[in-house]
Amino acid sequence: MQDLEFGAGLWMFQQFVDRYASDAYGPPVDTLAAIERAAAVGELKPLDINYPFAGDSVTIAKVRAVLERTGLRAHAITPHLYMREFQLGSFTNPDAALRQKAVDLGKRAVEVAQELGAKYVKFWPGQDGYDYPFQVDYARIWDYQVSGVRAVAEAAPAMQFAIEYKLKEPRVHMLFGTAARTLLAIEDIGVDNVGIVLDLGHAFFAKETPADVLQLVSRRGKLVSVEVNDNWREWDDDMTVGSVHLIETLEFLYGLRQINWAGPILLDQFPFREDPIQAAQSSIQTIRALYGVLDRLDLSALRAAQDHHDSLAAQRLVLDTLLGPGAGKGKG
Amino acid sequence: MQDLEFGAGLWMFQQFVDRYASDAYGPPVDTLAAIERAAAVGELKPLDINYPFAGDSVTIAKVRAVLERTGLRAHAITPHLYMREFQLGSFTNPDAALRQKAVDLGKRAVEVAQELGAKYVKFWPGQDGYDYPFQVDYARIWDYQVSGVRAVAEAAPAMQFAIEYKLKEPRVHMLFGTAARTLLAIEDIGVDNVGIVLDLGHAFFAKETPADVLQLVSRRGKLVSVEVNDNWREWDDDMTVGSVHLIETLEFLYGLRQINWAGPILLDQFPFREDPIQAAQSSIQTIRALYGVLDRLDLSALRAAQDHHDSLAAQRLVLDTLLGPGAGKGKG
Amino acid sequence: MQDLEFGAGLWMFQQFVDRYASDAYGPPVDTLAAIERAAAVGELKPLDINYPFAGDSVTIAKVRAVLERTGLRAHAITPHLYMREFQLGSFTNPDAALRQKAVDLGKRAVEVAQELGAKYVKFWPGQDGYDYPFQVDYARIWDYQVSGVRAVAEAAPAMQFAIEYKLKEPRVHMLFGTAARTLLAIEDIGVDNVGIVLDLGHAFFAKETPADVLQLVSRRGKLVSVEVNDNWREWDDDMTVGSVHLIETLEFLYGLRQINWAGPILLDQFPFREDPIQAAQSSIQTIRALYGVLDRLDLSALRAAQDHHDSLAAQRLVLDTLLGPGAGKGKG
Amino acid sequence: MQDLEFGAGLWMFQQFVDRYASDAYGPPVDTLAAIERAAAVGELKPLDINYPFAGDSVTIAKVRAVLERTGLRAHAITPHLYMREFQLGSFTNPDAALRQKAVDLGKRAVEVAQELGAKYVKFWPGQDGYDYPFQVDYARIWDYQVSGVRAVAEAAPAMQFAIEYKLKEPRVHMLFGTAARTLLAIEDIGVDNVGIVLDLGHAFFAKETPADVLQLVSRRGKLVSVEVNDNWREWDDDMTVGSVHLIETLEFLYGLRQINWAGPILLDQFPFREDPIQAAQSSIQTIRALYGVLDRLDLSALRAAQDHHDSLAAQRLVLDTLLGPGAGKGKG
Repeated sequence: MQDLEFGAGLWMFQQFVDRYASDAYGPPVDTLAAIERAAAVGELKPLDINYPFAGDSVTIAKVRAVLERTGLRAHAITPHLYMREFQLGSFTNPDAALRQKAVDLGKRAVEVAQELGAKYVKFWPGQDGYDYPFQVDYARIWDYQVSGVRAVAEAAPAMQFAIEYKLKEPRVHMLFGTAARTLLAIEDIGVDNVGIVLDLGHAFFAKETPADVLQLVSRRGKLVSVEVNDNWREWDDDMTVGSVHLIETLEFLYGLRQINWAGPILLDQFPFREDPIQAAQSSIQTIRALYGVLDRLDLSALRAAQDHHDSLAAQRLVLDTLLGPGAGKGKG
Repeated sequence: MQDLEFGAGLWMFQQFVDRYASDAYGPPVDTLAAIERAAAVGELKPLDINYPFAGDSVTIAKVRAVLERTGLRAHAITPHLYMREFQLGSFTNPDAALRQKAVDLGKRAVEVAQELGAKYVKFWPGQDGYDYPFQVDYARIWDYQVSGVRAVAEAAPAMQFAIEYKLKEPRVHMLFGTAARTLLAIEDIGVDNVGIVLDLGHAFFAKETPADVLQLVSRRGKLVSVEVNDNWREWDDDMTVGSVHLIETLEFLYGLRQINWAGPILLDQFPFREDPIQAAQSSIQTIRALYGVLDRLDLSALRAAQDHHDSLAAQRLVLDTLLGPGAGKGKG
Repeated sequence: MQDLEFGAGLWMFQQFVDRYASDAYGPPVDTLAAIERAAAVGELKPLDINYPFAGDSVTIAKVRAVLERTGLRAHAITPHLYMREFQLGSFTNPDAALRQKAVDLGKRAVEVAQELGAKYVKFWPGQDGYDYPFQVDYARIWDYQVSGVRAVAEAAPAMQFAIEYKLKEPRVHMLFGTAARTLLAIEDIGVDNVGIVLDLGHAFFAKETPADVLQLVSRRGKLVSVEVNDNWREWDDDMTVGSVHLIETLEFLYGLRQINWAGPILLDQFPFREDPIQAAQSSIQTIRALYGVLDRLDLSALRAAQDHHDSLAAQRLVLDTLLGPGAGKGKG
Repeated sequence: MQDLEFGAGLWMFQQFVDRYASDAYGPPVDTLAAIERAAAVGELKPLDINYPFAGDSVTIAKVRAVLERTGLRAHAITPHLYMREFQLGSFTNPDAALRQKAVDLGKRAVEVAQELGAKYVKFWPGQDGYDYPFQVDYARIWDYQVSGVRAVAEAAPAMQFAIEYKLKEPRVHMLFGTAARTLLAIEDIGVDNVGIVLDLGHAFFAKETPADVLQLVSRRGKLVSVEVNDNWREWDDDMTVGSVHLIETLEFLYGLRQINWAGPILLDQFPFREDPIQAAQSSIQTIRALYGVLDRLDLSALRAAQDHHDSLAAQRLVLDTLLGPGAGKGKG
């Protein structure tokens, strides 16, 4: 089996809240404690860490120390561009001062990434968009978004950046909603150091075929990182990997193998009602088992079926490999 | 025009938080201050009030005092059955002690309703359901849910109760997701004092036709209350009334007139990024304007069109009344 | 393994057409030839057969003869209540003469069912509903629908009837869209011999949890028949079983075992671009393989997990059984 | 009011069939009779005409004659790339001979367009895509699609071409599903004479914001044509304009005004159960009425609201203009 490296968005080990359970699903967890939890999973190395950190006294030095002690590493820094002050948008905020503040926070995230040795800074513009018909001038907020990302990226040409698209939430409509829209935006940004984080669940949510958009992004040379989880396709439920869409998850992993993806696979889960350490372990076990299925899959037979768009042949190959050779054959 | 009375779920004037903007969209607002805000709308009388109240020192006496002073009234009491401790369910919680706690909180809500003179206690079982395949025994949690509601309702036969169904959120799948399911559950509950709160937005979200389920619920004598808002049909966005689905909102109001609805119309909005007082005023203005459209609508002509399922005739009647007589006719 | 019997809706072996490929996806296939194709699958016995038959010279005697020769049997008769003349509805048609014609066709289907020894007559009211806002009086068409079914069912008290609900298509909104609505309608119909055909794909399409509505229908004693297929949850794609929703299909089969379902499992597929015989065989193989997974599943461990709503434990049990014991464990 | 020109896809006046009402919703209508029906609407000029024509004896000369007599004109020619022989794809068909046949049919459509003086040839690749997971190699069918369109477009550099994207139907997943994907494909095609037909209903169906993608396409200089209709956002129902999404239709027309759209507006409807002439007239009346609303809308006030992303102010401006000044104000 291929050598796999797993990581996680650190938030999956922190506190969750929503608009109903406003007393939160558990106690606060600061960035340092969250790293300890991530380490307890036993198989995680690279982390995507939010900045500003959670916890008043948490410093870069302390984060670096706990990373070193646990053997984990900062893989990405994601600035908090979607908190209260940015509720009308970060890069697209109607207030020029707040747009500048978003750019400044992006630049600060670059510094943090540099200090922690992270590979990329992630933009997750969750408040950038609109809620109502007629609320915004679509052309203008597109330009604001493009300009904001460009301003940060141009200021740090040696740093890699990645946009994580999502259809919506918290904003009712997000501007960077799909892989294709984000690729168009990246063209408009016009720099070389901005790519895409492809989140499997966001692809499900956007009603994309994950293995298809993986090709779309990868062939344009814009795939920076991969995050995985599952959902019911109508919301970003951030569930354990393969829990609902097992077949399509397998096809996505097959796609990763097709493009020779050598980077880590990051978990992006919100285990509201589960133990996050077990939730991470369970996802990793499922991914490994699915890679095991791929190892056993007759790839030349699959390609032959795909040469003829032969859905039944392709399906039987996959299901027979998944469920066991001969399973269901005959009346046994 | 028909005499309309408007009310609101008090939460629309309180603090909003979500899983991203965990520093909330604004400062905390206690129950008393929220009532003051509701009063500032100028047209609201009946309120649906969450219990326990927001704010440590807020007592029933203080709530009663501010209601009296502002001229508003408690119309419904909604117990907080969806906070942290009930994250695995209130009436359906796997832990019998927590199921009992939910029943006890329901009974306490009855006392509060009695003390404040509210018309009904609302169950909004937002955590009752499941997230994952194979997580629960569906028959058992249905029975738990039915038993829990029954236990509260039987203990207070003089009080009216109402279930507000919703497809999901916060639980990934809620057990009482649609009008029809909830009507079946009410049969199983088997008491006379449990009905339904029909939330217009929840009907949109459940992909129901609101005017149709209004008939379904009303004809079975189970319509206790009506809440209104709008959304994009894929999530409970709790937006201002008529902002997206203007035609279907009009049809819903027409349905209310058909069943001679004499109760108040309650707003259920979450104006995350808007002034809540203006958001309420705007909804009320739109509803009044739509009732004005109904006043001008030729009802016998509409019925004649409906006698033949003549969609084009019905549509022209409605659009001509809405957009102005003769609007769009000829090339003018 | 449990003794399974498989059947099919005969239409899966006939000609498919849609609004674009109006020259059809293949040549016409009359009812007799379709039965021959069904027989060629090798594992099908009970059939759901449309009436009137396809093919001008096809008679009941000829159908009986080919059934006897092939060893298949008529399990259900489904009258064509959704052809051109019923485009505005069968039982709900605004024209009383057409409503009567629908009832007459229903009664004729009973005779055909009796002559062929079928177990039930299926109502699939695909044109009964509405397309546009304000097009119909919802209460009236509900009553029409209820009355129409009752008129047929009361006329043949010894015959079993079953309603197959679906959200929409061909009508833009169908009146009997979900399991719960149909159960309410059956109450209104008020006879003992009307139940439900639970189509797995229709449950996916209606955004129901199939294993949950299976309990809902079964516990009310209304489960008459089960049809299976798969889709992408946004349309009734009628694909091979387990091709998309493998986990939920497994959970549905587990539900069938829980209720001790002893009847046959009928395929309801539209293999537009596939060989229908192979498409049927593939579905059957997958179902058998999934029953094999259930045979290996530790049911007491599953129940223990469900006692605590422990999603991670339940999930690991299911995935480990599906993917092989220990699959994905460790770093191997 | 702006001078508006209306046209239609000619198919809306022809025969409709679907997979259930396989005896069709009405009798066959050949291309010539359909043009007569289109003329009877009284306001249609440009037509999008399918080729091959409907009706065995219908020739280009006869089509030209009836166009001249009725005063209508061929605006676009749409080759039938989605009939039986192309059920596995036209440009993406696994069979090279069929891919070539699709290119040949495209070239033949160019000749027809030239002979009838049409402005563009439309590609509507309704069978190009896939149905099942693992059925196709996504990168390869993308390349096939791109190559096929390029082959036709390069052969006729003086002709304009336009791709009409849609999420799905008849193919379960279509390759050119959204505006953004199609823009990326057009880049890959790499010629100057291929653009987009933006179908309002397809934008609704793809969960796009129509007024937003209008900007996206227009700003890249790729907007060739505009088609309008309505649907319930979950299927391409092809209903009359504004019947469901009145507000968003208004916003789309506002967008057309913003980009100074000077071309015609084409109806794309499938009035299965309605008179097509009345269905067209009704849509046109609604569009004119909505343009009347735009004429009365205070655009500088709207822009001021949008400067601040002020959803409530924008909404009141629009609703007050739509429903009448002062409507719903006060308690009157």
